[in-house]
Amino acid sequence: MSKQQLYLHYKEHLQKIADVKYASAVLQWDQETYMPANGAGFRARQTATLSEITHELFTQEKFKNILQELRHADGLTTAQQKNVSLTWYDYTQQEKLSAPFVRQLSEAISKSFQSWIAARKDNRFAVFETDLARVVDLKKQEADLLGYEEHPYNALLNQYERGCATILLDKIFSELQEPLKDLLNKIRNRPQVEDAFLYQRFPKQVQWDFGIKVLQDLGFDMTSGRQDISEHPFTTNFSSKDVRITTRIDENDFSNMTWSCIHECGHALYEQGLPESEYGLPLGEYTSLSIHESQSRLWENNVGRSMDCWTYLYPILVNYFPEQFKRTSVESFYRGINKVTPSLIRTEADELTYHFHVLIRYQLEKELIGDDLSVKDIPAYWNEQYEKLLGVKVPDDKRGCLQDVHWSHGSFGYFATYSLGSFYAAQFFNAAKTNRPDLSLEIRNGRFQPLLGWLRKNIHVHGRRYTSEELCKMITNEPLTIKYFLEYVLDKYKLIYEF
Amino acid sequence: MSKQQLYLHYKEHLQKIADVKYASAVLQWDQETYMPANGAGFRARQTATLSEITHELFTQEKFKNILQELRHADGLTTAQQKNVSLTWYDYTQQEKLSAPFVRQLSEAISKSFQSWIAARKDNRFAVFETDLARVVDLKKQEADLLGYEEHPYNALLNQYERGCATILLDKIFSELQEPLKDLLNKIRNRPQVEDAFLYQRFPKQVQWDFGIKVLQDLGFDMTSGRQDISEHPFTTNFSSKDVRITTRIDENDFSNMTWSCIHECGHALYEQGLPESEYGLPLGEYTSLSIHESQSRLWENNVGRSMDCWTYLYPILVNYFPEQFKRTSVESFYRGINKVTPSLIRTEADELTYHFHVLIRYQLEKELIGDDLSVKDIPAYWNEQYEKLLGVKVPDDKRGCLQDVHWSHGSFGYFATYSLGSFYAAQFFNAAKTNRPDLSLEIRNGRFQPLLGWLRKNIHVHGRRYTSEELCKMITNEPLTIKYFLEYVLDKYKLIYEF
Repeated sequence: MSKQQLYLHYKEHLQKIADVKYASAVLQWDQETYMPANGAGFRARQTATLSEITHELFTQEKFKNILQELRHADGLTTAQQKNVSLTWYDYTQQEKLSAPFVRQLSEAISKSFQSWIAARKDNRFAVFETDLARVVDLKKQEADLLGYEEHPYNALLNQYERGCATILLDKIFSELQEPLKDLLNKIRNRPQVEDAFLYQRFPKQVQWDFGIKVLQDLGFDMTSGRQDISEHPFTTNFSSKDVRITTRIDENDFSNMTWSCIHECGHALYEQGLPESEYGLPLGEYTSLSIHESQSRLWENNVGRSMDCWTYLYPILVNYFPEQFKRTSVESFYRGINKVTPSLIRTEADELTYHFHVLIRYQLEKELIGDDLSVKDIPAYWNEQYEKLLGVKVPDDKRGCLQDVHWSHGSFGYFATYSLGSFYAAQFFNAAKTNRPDLSLEIRNGRFQPLLGWLRKNIHVHGRRYTSEELCKMITNEPLTIKYFLEYVLDKYKLIYEF
Repeated sequence: MSKQQLYLHYKEHLQKIADVKYASAVLQWDQETYMPANGAGFRARQTATLSEITHELFTQEKFKNILQELRHADGLTTAQQKNVSLTWYDYTQQEKLSAPFVRQLSEAISKSFQSWIAARKDNRFAVFETDLARVVDLKKQEADLLGYEEHPYNALLNQYERGCATILLDKIFSELQEPLKDLLNKIRNRPQVEDAFLYQRFPKQVQWDFGIKVLQDLGFDMTSGRQDISEHPFTTNFSSKDVRITTRIDENDFSNMTWSCIHECGHALYEQGLPESEYGLPLGEYTSLSIHESQSRLWENNVGRSMDCWTYLYPILVNYFPEQFKRTSVESFYRGINKVTPSLIRTEADELTYHFHVLIRYQLEKELIGDDLSVKDIPAYWNEQYEKLLGVKVPDDKRGCLQDVHWSHGSFGYFATYSLGSFYAAQFFNAAKTNRPDLSLEIRNGRFQPLLGWLRKNIHVHGRRYTSEELCKMITNEPLTIKYFLEYVLDKYKLIYEF
């Protein structure tokens, strides 16, 4: 068999696996948007079966042989070689987890998601505890199976961000803490900005319509995606031609829907920009979670909370809600949507205090996986840390340790990538501005296409070809640094809080 | 290994297959309700892959060996034996179709569904022709692979209704034709009833709300199912705990949504009543398509177009649409909703002329599969038959041969079961009335639970344990006969048309 024939076998097999994975993603999307409550039991076993099949297909001896032969092959293009070597890496990782283990984990996750929903309804962590403990237990086993250096949590971090480790994150968070605290103190010493206009009554349907308008303006392709409502907003995709985002709407809080909608849109624009021709192959996949998050953060914050953006969008918004905004100038609106204040809910946090929310979760997970904290003590730990780092008292579990969907999904090691995403976003946005001196002007005129084009060309089109670090160096000529993020927030809040 | 251990292996394997089948059903449900247009391409390959996996799992040598050992086993309960023998039958059928053939068919069907949508949009059969021709070609191959006696179409009929054949259907339709024509003539000679009140303006949302109210009254469990909107109404399920129905709403035609909603509800009540403990096994599946259809028809017509039902429902309806119905008495309403008049659209046809719609499709399919008609000649054949049998001129393809989704799904041999369903429905409803003398009164008081309970006990709970014929004899003490249907329509229309 020629190398190209062999590559074709490899490609077909991997795309078949992608079909099953994406099918499973459809089931999960349905579970979180439309599935009736009683559907949960059988749905759990259905997604578990699909996970098992994916795992079986991926770990087939036959496939391993193809991979091994291709790894040392001449006659492949550079792109083909890259696909093969990334798949080989994935293979060696996956090989460490047995099919029964994968099924157990998937079933435990489906159950814990349901009890997370129930626990939120009841506003009692205890309802979630047993099923979560089972998931944590399996995640520890997973870390052991995957192997790690220094800390078991590194094995989990590495699943979301290849090469990521506690030593790196400890360093970044420690570099960040002082300047962030300084900035927060400066802000605290200034009069608070006004944002009461965000908490009027905003009818559901009008919010929804405004959200759709924003999605379309930013460049979300509605013929290759859609938005729905779910408990916790998320983005998923079943190909680059079918990208689903969800949002939630609070009729008494305009910000709840709006920036989550822009955030998910950022994720979705990335997915819609991945190369269709590489469907199911590594080069058709996103680089890493932090790069994915850099795209959502860039649109949510660097664009979506900028004066440039609202110079264009605000008159449109006023048309949707003339009564609500008639006494608010665009300048006041801009200051209000950038209000900095320690708060309880991560997804509603401002751009500064946000990173304390992440830090708490990061440290909590590290202790949980390292056996320094037990699941039943999560609420106490959580509440203590929120008081210590953010100075807020957590009134109940729903606004405390039950607020995020991640743990119920078994996603430990995920949160840190949110902060990394913000730092990459600032660094990329700075590069985009350097490359396109007219960027501000374009955004002020509602022309988001040039920025999207820049992201498509420099980031999206590459898929998983480069690591986060390589991509960052290629685009910005230096490795990740929190310098640009700190510059960005300092410049911004200096003007807003006038210090 | 003990027989019970072996049975457990059989059960686990079959339930795993069910998981994949139901996953595929979720993808198909999504495709017809929410999927963005550009998602179609990759969705086609995703469902094709799931079909292929289902087929691979089902035709595994290992599974065949288990089945063969279990077939001749002592130590199984009667129910277990029944499951095994039905699976063995399915196995021998499936074995005749190769995995590549199943994939080809599934891909062709996904494509043809999309071009059916496009053709309806364009109102041109030509847009659908090539993809349909491919499906027909594959269905002929399928008939050859499955094997048949007398006519290749019998192989396809048998897939939906075991034992069904052209010789039986030719007989039933010929017995039906004369009495039906007689009845139609009697009706034609009487003044037509008034139904203009159905074609006023009925706002979408109010129709939707009324539909949901009806679903709940009839006993549809909203925690184990839901309703959505699609191009063509259908019922699907992913377990007996997650049953999805769809409807469509025409703001200028109240009947369009209402009886399709009741019809799909009948299907859904059946699915919700199948034994949960037999998930994925034959005894957890419906008896046959004609029995499935008997449930939808019974609720749609025998109940949903009866004076008893509307004695209860009409005052409720008037609350939803006070303006629209203020000048219409319940008697006039009852007569109007039972108006008999030859028409173009099968799903909107009255209970009498409906069977001519089926007859035309039945004969068309028989000729298509028997190579006596080619795909390109479908519109001409269709239009000619509608003129001949129903006396109506078909103005365009959308109201002609593009009206049904079935062919785009590759469902040839399906339509006949609709008529069989009506005949079973009349026979079952007659038995229910005999068994429960208070049934009319209960329905007049909006108490549908006793009827549902009767159906659950006599039909739903059995799953696929009996054949249609066995079930019919068990419940009604005689085999299927069109006698009850003819009695039912004669009694009904005599009063309505006063002849």
